[in-house]
Amino acid sequence: MTYAELDRKALLRIRDEAQQKLNTYEAQHLSLDLTRGKPGRSQLDLTEGMLTALSSGRDCKDEDGLDCRNYGLLDGLPEAKRLFSDLLGIPADRIIVGGNSSLNMMYDAVARLMLYGAAPGKTPYCRQGTVKFLCPTPGYDRHFAISRSFGMEMIPIEMREDGPDMDAVREAVKDPSVKGIWCVPKFSNPDGITYSDKVVGEFAALEPAADDFRIFWDNAYAVHELYDTEVPLRDIFAAAKEYGHEDMIYYFASTSKISFPGSGVAIFASSDANVAYTKKIMSAQTIGFDKLNQLRHVRYFGSADGIRAQMKQHAALIRPKFKVVLDAFRRELPDTGARWTEPLGGYFVSLYVMPGTARRVYELAGKAGVKLTAAGSAFPSGIDPRDSHLRIAPTYPDLGDLRIAVPILCECVKLAAAEKLLG
Amino acid sequence: MTYAELDRKALLRIRDEAQQKLNTYEAQHLSLDLTRGKPGRSQLDLTEGMLTALSSGRDCKDEDGLDCRNYGLLDGLPEAKRLFSDLLGIPADRIIVGGNSSLNMMYDAVARLMLYGAAPGKTPYCRQGTVKFLCPTPGYDRHFAISRSFGMEMIPIEMREDGPDMDAVREAVKDPSVKGIWCVPKFSNPDGITYSDKVVGEFAALEPAADDFRIFWDNAYAVHELYDTEVPLRDIFAAAKEYGHEDMIYYFASTSKISFPGSGVAIFASSDANVAYTKKIMSAQTIGFDKLNQLRHVRYFGSADGIRAQMKQHAALIRPKFKVVLDAFRRELPDTGARWTEPLGGYFVSLYVMPGTARRVYELAGKAGVKLTAAGSAFPSGIDPRDSHLRIAPTYPDLGDLRIAVPILCECVKLAAAEKLLG
Repeated sequence: MTYAELDRKALLRIRDEAQQKLNTYEAQHLSLDLTRGKPGRSQLDLTEGMLTALSSGRDCKDEDGLDCRNYGLLDGLPEAKRLFSDLLGIPADRIIVGGNSSLNMMYDAVARLMLYGAAPGKTPYCRQGTVKFLCPTPGYDRHFAISRSFGMEMIPIEMREDGPDMDAVREAVKDPSVKGIWCVPKFSNPDGITYSDKVVGEFAALEPAADDFRIFWDNAYAVHELYDTEVPLRDIFAAAKEYGHEDMIYYFASTSKISFPGSGVAIFASSDANVAYTKKIMSAQTIGFDKLNQLRHVRYFGSADGIRAQMKQHAALIRPKFKVVLDAFRRELPDTGARWTEPLGGYFVSLYVMPGTARRVYELAGKAGVKLTAAGSAFPSGIDPRDSHLRIAPTYPDLGDLRIAVPILCECVKLAAAEKLLG
Repeated sequence: MTYAELDRKALLRIRDEAQQKLNTYEAQHLSLDLTRGKPGRSQLDLTEGMLTALSSGRDCKDEDGLDCRNYGLLDGLPEAKRLFSDLLGIPADRIIVGGNSSLNMMYDAVARLMLYGAAPGKTPYCRQGTVKFLCPTPGYDRHFAISRSFGMEMIPIEMREDGPDMDAVREAVKDPSVKGIWCVPKFSNPDGITYSDKVVGEFAALEPAADDFRIFWDNAYAVHELYDTEVPLRDIFAAAKEYGHEDMIYYFASTSKISFPGSGVAIFASSDANVAYTKKIMSAQTIGFDKLNQLRHVRYFGSADGIRAQMKQHAALIRPKFKVVLDAFRRELPDTGARWTEPLGGYFVSLYVMPGTARRVYELAGKAGVKLTAAGSAFPSGIDPRDSHLRIAPTYPDLGDLRIAVPILCECVKLAAAEKLLG
């Protein structure tokens, strides 16, 4: 029987049992962390060989003989472009290989839109009054933080099983002050949803009122399958080409969850015109990014297949962690009014607890020593209107800690639901 | 006798001799490059050991046990801050350790001023109409390129032997639309001038009309002495403290010409208030910079003294190159109406040829196979009003090439001067 069907007495028993268990946990002064999508230590160890992939000056020349230890080459090594091109199916000359952070490249892309405009002759966003960005919700808090930082108005767009609600997107972009949308098209953060071919096609076909509207296509989990099932994502550039809309696409990716987070390599890709325009502005910003680190990646992985092979090892390490979470949810939560995602890749599980209890679960878990990402943080305003969503990040803790943390979380979900029904 | 004192016949002989020599060079189809301030290969080899300074996962923890391979720590490793603090005499908590490029940190600092303003509550530059920056001239072309990129009006300030003309600076900052100044206070690019204690004090005491005026203090050559003579630079923060003006100082430095250009580590330092404000904005831009590369620098150099020792090796490698240039100038150019700087450090020699001939020298040298930085490029507009200045960068070519290139340059200077006097 679901909690909603139980009588008061049964609910009181559930509440008291859960409370008792949590009291025991609290007394243990645990410190467990399910907050951020960070790889675990064993995943980082996979890439150890990259540290010494360049070990002498002789190793530091690129395929054209350029000494990567010295200044130069704004848009990245040719072989690094090719590596990403092979991996992602984007033409190499569309790619700018940057520094260590795709988030930084996204922020910089928005800053350029703010200060210079989307193309030569276009008015910078900062001189256009209110700027609005569409935020598929729940979504990635750091995307929303960029919009917030630039003072943008954020419009939530509901996520469906196959991607954002495209009717709502089409309606919203009729407003010429709507300038962009944040997308994680594959294994979305936090739901793990991959946009269907239809949704990708609808993005490509979009006809926004603003001619400087941009789709931020953050393919952060492009090769981050958890299981043997490969999950294809339709090629947004190919789809956009059919409509002559390639200028609308800003594509981002990185090796943060392939090699080392914080010491990986990120890319920006767009239409030829956008890439040329971006490079012109970037030439005032920097002489070039860290080419040695780009070369380390090329030498260590060798090829896109080298990356794919490493991703299988990553998956083998984190699959058991997802299993711990999902097994516990399946065992403990079916009657509580909670539902959850069972993603085929990416870094997160979305847990939708009984509406009106997410903040309470967050609070209870914190007291019991399990740190969760704050309830509401996947929403642009930081407020989940249903107070139901929690983002669970299973990858960083080791398996032992996870086996302690997740049952605690489940007790919190039960207690909060019982409390809620008891009123 | 100087050329100006010679009769027409003597000038014709000089012209013809120089032309003849240049014809010979031209026939050799040389390709020599004196354009940019890049270290030579032997300098890069000095830092070879850094490539393997981190060789296993165990090496990758910072002093607090943080795994530098993973996400986190926005403002840099504590030991990296301390390394720069010891080297530059700046309090460690004033320092943000960033990515691979101080130029990028400067650009980002200007972008923040444009978009967010200089402090909480201050109006962003982009909403203040015309913004003007002071450009000590001749100066660093990439500084000016940042101002140009943001559409600023650039006001040239003449460089004196002890730094910028501070009377002109004080006069200029009475205009509230004057928002900043570009400074390379030690071994300035391109003159190699180090600001005197008096000039540094006058900067610290500056009372601009704009309360969001910022001094961009690009200490790019902080430890880049060419000879055993140490050239002290007065501590700008200590001086500014006397006037309560620490908020006015934006300090930058990097290891680009210490370790690897393009794969070094850069810093930004400012007042406590500015650092806190900057970190808040930066937290929307990135999760953090490349901590592994910061750690590589700390491990490889060990201490500020380790850096100083390496700088002596750099100096030993580039001193002979400066000698080739200066010996040739002293031997060939005294009568031509040219003068030049003989810097005690840094990466450049300023060659001031007979007024009205710099562009001609550039052109002649190009024809003879010696690429120079374009005449005028050290001036904000790209135009040197006297058409006299050429920036000579001796470090990148090897000694053999330099011994061919510099005499060619000298012939070009002679020919252009003779042509000019002949009318």
